[in-house]
Amino acid sequence: MHRYRTHTCGALRPSDVGQTVRLSGWCHRIRDHGGVLFIDLRDHYGRTQCVVDSDSKAFQGANLARSEWVIRLDGRVRTRPAGTENPDLPTGTIEVYIDDLEVLGPAGELPVPVFGDQEYPEETRLKYRFLDLRRDKLHANIMKRGAIIDSLRRRMREGGFFEFQTPILTASSPEGARDYLVPSRVHPGKFYALPQAPQQFKQLTMIAGFDRYFQIAPCFRDEDARADRSPGEFYQLDIEMSFVTQEDVFQSVEPVLRSVFEEFADGKRVTKDFPRIPYAEAMLKYGVDKPDLRNPLIIADVTDLFAREDVAFKAFKGVIASGGVVRAIPATGAAGQSRSFFDKLNDFARSEGAPGLGYIVFEDVDGVLTGKGPIAKFIPAEVQASIAETTGTKAGDAVFFSAGTEAKAAALAGKARNRIADELNLSDKDQFAFCWITDFPMYEWNEDDKKIDFSHNPFSMPNFDREAFLALDPADEKTILGIKAFQYDIVCNGTELSSGAIRNHRPDVMEKAFGIAGYGVEVLEEKFGGMLNALKLGAPPHGGIAPGIDRIVMLLCGEQNLREVVLFPMNQRAEDLMMGAPAEATPKQLRELHIRLNLPEKSA
Amino acid sequence: MHRYRTHTCGALRPSDVGQTVRLSGWCHRIRDHGGVLFIDLRDHYGRTQCVVDSDSKAFQGANLARSEWVIRLDGRVRTRPAGTENPDLPTGTIEVYIDDLEVLGPAGELPVPVFGDQEYPEETRLKYRFLDLRRDKLHANIMKRGAIIDSLRRRMREGGFFEFQTPILTASSPEGARDYLVPSRVHPGKFYALPQAPQQFKQLTMIAGFDRYFQIAPCFRDEDARADRSPGEFYQLDIEMSFVTQEDVFQSVEPVLRSVFEEFADGKRVTKDFPRIPYAEAMLKYGVDKPDLRNPLIIADVTDLFAREDVAFKAFKGVIASGGVVRAIPATGAAGQSRSFFDKLNDFARSEGAPGLGYIVFEDVDGVLTGKGPIAKFIPAEVQASIAETTGTKAGDAVFFSAGTEAKAAALAGKARNRIADELNLSDKDQFAFCWITDFPMYEWNEDDKKIDFSHNPFSMPNFDREAFLALDPADEKTILGIKAFQYDIVCNGTELSSGAIRNHRPDVMEKAFGIAGYGVEVLEEKFGGMLNALKLGAPPHGGIAPGIDRIVMLLCGEQNLREVVLFPMNQRAEDLMMGAPAEATPKQLRELHIRLNLPEKSA
Repeated sequence: MHRYRTHTCGALRPSDVGQTVRLSGWCHRIRDHGGVLFIDLRDHYGRTQCVVDSDSKAFQGANLARSEWVIRLDGRVRTRPAGTENPDLPTGTIEVYIDDLEVLGPAGELPVPVFGDQEYPEETRLKYRFLDLRRDKLHANIMKRGAIIDSLRRRMREGGFFEFQTPILTASSPEGARDYLVPSRVHPGKFYALPQAPQQFKQLTMIAGFDRYFQIAPCFRDEDARADRSPGEFYQLDIEMSFVTQEDVFQSVEPVLRSVFEEFADGKRVTKDFPRIPYAEAMLKYGVDKPDLRNPLIIADVTDLFAREDVAFKAFKGVIASGGVVRAIPATGAAGQSRSFFDKLNDFARSEGAPGLGYIVFEDVDGVLTGKGPIAKFIPAEVQASIAETTGTKAGDAVFFSAGTEAKAAALAGKARNRIADELNLSDKDQFAFCWITDFPMYEWNEDDKKIDFSHNPFSMPNFDREAFLALDPADEKTILGIKAFQYDIVCNGTELSSGAIRNHRPDVMEKAFGIAGYGVEVLEEKFGGMLNALKLGAPPHGGIAPGIDRIVMLLCGEQNLREVVLFPMNQRAEDLMMGAPAEATPKQLRELHIRLNLPEKSA
Repeated sequence: MHRYRTHTCGALRPSDVGQTVRLSGWCHRIRDHGGVLFIDLRDHYGRTQCVVDSDSKAFQGANLARSEWVIRLDGRVRTRPAGTENPDLPTGTIEVYIDDLEVLGPAGELPVPVFGDQEYPEETRLKYRFLDLRRDKLHANIMKRGAIIDSLRRRMREGGFFEFQTPILTASSPEGARDYLVPSRVHPGKFYALPQAPQQFKQLTMIAGFDRYFQIAPCFRDEDARADRSPGEFYQLDIEMSFVTQEDVFQSVEPVLRSVFEEFADGKRVTKDFPRIPYAEAMLKYGVDKPDLRNPLIIADVTDLFAREDVAFKAFKGVIASGGVVRAIPATGAAGQSRSFFDKLNDFARSEGAPGLGYIVFEDVDGVLTGKGPIAKFIPAEVQASIAETTGTKAGDAVFFSAGTEAKAAALAGKARNRIADELNLSDKDQFAFCWITDFPMYEWNEDDKKIDFSHNPFSMPNFDREAFLALDPADEKTILGIKAFQYDIVCNGTELSSGAIRNHRPDVMEKAFGIAGYGVEVLEEKFGGMLNALKLGAPPHGGIAPGIDRIVMLLCGEQNLREVVLFPMNQRAEDLMMGAPAEATPKQLRELHIRLNLPEKSA
C-alpha cells in the first residue's frame, strides 16, 4: 500500500464499496454526532466523507483532529445510509469507515477558516494566501487560469506559432510606463530594467528570421495598483508575425481568442465574427474606443438637426456655433421611468463636469410620435421625428443629448450610454462581445504645444503609400492629421485586451514619421537605437499584438479583481504580506550593488 | 494574391511546377553567372533558388539586391536543369524564375555575415545577435530549445501536473546565492528580490492544496558567469508534489526526462532505468557525486591491501596510518601506452596538488599476471593479484592509485578516472547516461568550527523515525553523522541537472534539525519565517526537484556553451551588448527609488 494514499479524495465510487483504501488530505469539516465523528476529507481532487465511532481503534486519534489538519487514514468503503447521500459530490453515495489514522501535518488556530463562505479582509487573506487558496472558489479560479493558459498555448502552437523566452534582465524600453530597475553589481552605477513588455525582443526575433513568435510573457510596470492590473507584474500573450498585413494578424488571433472563450465561457455566447470598427466610428457610436457591445444602444450625431434655424434650443446652438457637436443617446423604453431616473442621469452628467443631459421622451399621442420633457418645446415636431429616426427611437423611448467639443461630447455620450443601459438593464450579460478597433489616427493636434504629435503608437506603420509619405510636407497638416496607422485594439465586453500594430520596419519611414512630429533623428536614436540598427540590416514587415492574460482570465472567471485570479498577488501597496516583500537590504548588499539609500526626510 | 507570399521558402515541390507564386525572404546568397542572377531566398521554413536574367523586367531590381536584403518576388516555378538539383534541400529540384521583385527591407554593410561557417568573436555575435540568429546552427538550436520545452510541458501535463506562475518580484530566499534586488518606489529603503528559484512558492502551492505543481520557471542569481549558466537568468523545470515519497518523485520525473531525451537524442541511447546510486557509493566508485556513467571505469578502495605488512610502499603506509585511504583507478588497455601517457597523468595529479599518481602496469609474463612500473617492486605478487581482482584489471591494463584523506583521495581518483577515460577514449559518447544519486548525509563534521553542520540542504526531511529524531541527543555525533536525508540529485553524462528533496514539512522536526546543527529557532524564524508559519497551519508531506532547462538543452544540442542555446543571452560580463544593458539611470529615476549611487573610488 502506498505510504500516503491508494486513492485521491475525489476518486471513490459505489464500485469501490467493500475495498480497504488509504486516503490523505485536509480535515475540511469535522462533525460530532454523539459518539460518531464525520470527517470530510479534502484534497485537490475532491472530498470524501469519512466516519469513525468508538468501535474503531482510530477513534481517539480522530477525536484530536481539528479543521485543516492533514491526516492519513485507512478504512473500508461503504455505502452511505439511505437518505444521507450528497448528490453534489461525485463521492456522495459512499463513505469510508476509518480503521487507522495518522496525523501528517497538524494545524494551529486558523486566522482564516477554509470551510464556509464568510468574507475576510483582503490583507488577512493575502497574508495567509495559502489558506485562502484552499477555499473552493479561489482554488477553482487558479485552476481555470492554468487551463486557459494551456489552451491559449496549445492553440497558438496549432496556429503555427513558436514559443520563445526573451530576457527579463534587460534595458529600459520606450513603453511609456515606469521601469523597475535592478542595480548591477558588476557594473557600478548601471542598472538593468525589467521589461514592461518584450516588445523590442519580439521584433528582434522577427528580424532574426523566426517568423511566428509567441510567449506567455511576464511584464513589469512600476505603476500604482488598479483592479485589473497587478502592482508589479502581469502576463500577456505576446504575439508577433513576419510578412503579414493587419488582416493576417486578425485571422491568426481571432480564432484563438474565440475558441478559448468558447471553451471556458460556461455557455455564454461568444462573438462569431469580430466586427471591425474604425476608431472614428467607435468614438461616434459608442463614445469610447473600447465599446461594450453587449450594450445595444448606439449614439448618433444630431448636430445638423440642432443647427436648423427652426430649432430654438440656445444652449446647443451656442455649442454648435463654436465648433462643437451634439450627440444623441437613445434610452430604449425609458418613457415609463419615474422622474428620479432622469434626475439621476442629470446628476451623473454634472458629476462629469457637464451642465446636464438634455432629453426628450417620446410618446404616442393619438397615433402621432410626440416629444415631451424640458427641451421638447424648443424642437419642432418635424425635427423631433428626424431625431427619432436617426436614433432609432419610438414611442415609449427617450433620447438624451450630449453637447460640447467633439471629444467631450463623445466621452460624455459614451458614459451616458453605459449608464442608461445599466439603469434600464438593456445589456445581455450572457455573452462575450468582441470587436476590433481599427484605423487609429497616426497623428493628432497637440493643443498645448500647438503642434502635430503622435496620436497613439509612434512605432506603427502609417497606412499611406511609402513614397508619398516620405515626400510629405510637414506643413500639410490636413493630410497629416488624416493619416491612419496600421494599429488596432482588441476589445471584449468593454475591456481593452490589447493594442497591436503592424510595425514600422523601415528606418526611412520612421525618421520621416518622427520628423513630422517634430522629433529629430537623435531622439529616435536615443530611445530606440538598438532597434533602429537592427532595422537597417534586413528587416521583414512584421506586426503583432499582446492580449492581457490576467484580463482574459478575469473575464472568464467573472471576477472584478485581479487578485482573485493570481496565485500569489501583491496587495494594493505592492507588498507581499506573506513573504514580507519588499524588505530592507543588508549594508553588504547595498555596498555590493554600489548604491546607498536616499530616504525621504521624516516630517516633523 | 497575398501581399507578401503565397508559399514559404520551404514549400515548393515539383508538383508546383508551372504555378505563379509569390515568395518573401532574405537574400541568403546571390550569385551572378554572367547575366543570370541566382538568389537563394531564405526564410524560417527553408530556402528556394530563384533565378532572373535580362529577359525579366525584375532584372534591374534584382541586380541591386545584396546579401540579407529582405525582398518579395513573384515568379513561375520551373524544374531545375538536369544536373543542377540540390538533394540537400527539400526544394532542391525546382527554382523560381523571377518576374517581379520588391525590396521590403534593405540591409547596410553586414558586421557579421550570415552565409558561411566562419567563426566570429563572441562579442560581435552578441552585439548583432539578430544576425547571428539567422545562421543555420543557432536558428536550429533555438527551435530545438522551444521543442524540448514544449515536450517537457506536454509530458508534465500528461503526468497529472498543473502549471502555475509564481511571483518574480518577491522576497529574498535562503537559497545561498546572491540576490538581484529591485528598489521599491512605494516603500523607501526597501527592496524586492528576484527569485533564485520559486522554492518557497512551490512549497506554499502544495500547502495551499494544489497537489501537483510545475513551472518552466525563470530564476535569477547574481553570480559570475559559467559556461553552463547564464549570468543573470536561467530556466528550470520546477516540480513539486504532495503526499509523495522519494520513490514517487523518481517515478514521476524519470519517464519525463527519459522520453524527452529519447525524442531529441538524434539516435543516441538513453538510459532505460536510471540507476540509483547512494552518495557514499558514488564517492567511492566515481570519486564524485555527479558521475559520468558513459565512462566504464570504476574506482575501488585498496586501503586494506596497501595496509598489509608485506606491502612496503611507505608513502601510502603513512597516509593510511594517519587515517587516509588508497583508491585504485583502472586504466583499461593502458599497458601499451607510451611513457608520455603516464607522465601526463602524473603532471595532472601534481596540478591538482597531489604528489603524483602511483601506478602499476600489468603484463602477462609466461602466463603469470605481473605488475611493472615504479612502485610494483614494493608490492608482492599476491597483493598485485588482489589489486587486479578488486579493480577488474588484467594483462594489458594499468591501475593508478590515489592516496590521502578520504575526501581528497576520492576527488583526485574521480578526476583521474575522467582523465584516463578521455586519454584512452574509453567512453561511449553516443548515449545519455542518467543516474539518481540518493542518500545524501543530513549532517557533516565542520572541521573549521569543530561542530556538526548541515551537509547539503537543511530543509530536507531526515530519513529517520520522527519520534527517534526528536529524541536525539545532540552529543550523539555518531548517530547524527550517520543520518541520511531524503535528498537526491539527477545526473546525466556527468552533469548535475538538479537536486531535489522530500521537504521537511514538520516544524518540530525542523527546529530539532536546526538545533542539532547549533542554530536556534530565531535563525530559522529569520530565514524561513513565512514558510514556518505556513507549515504550522496544515502542511502535507511534499517534495520535488527542478531540472535545469538550459543544461538539458545544451546536452541535447551537443553544445558546451549556454549562449548557443539561449535566444538573447548576456555576455560573460552580464551585459546585453545589443540593447545596451545595464545602463545608467536618470537622476529622476534614482530619486523616485530613494537611492543614490555609491561608486567605487577611481584608483589614482
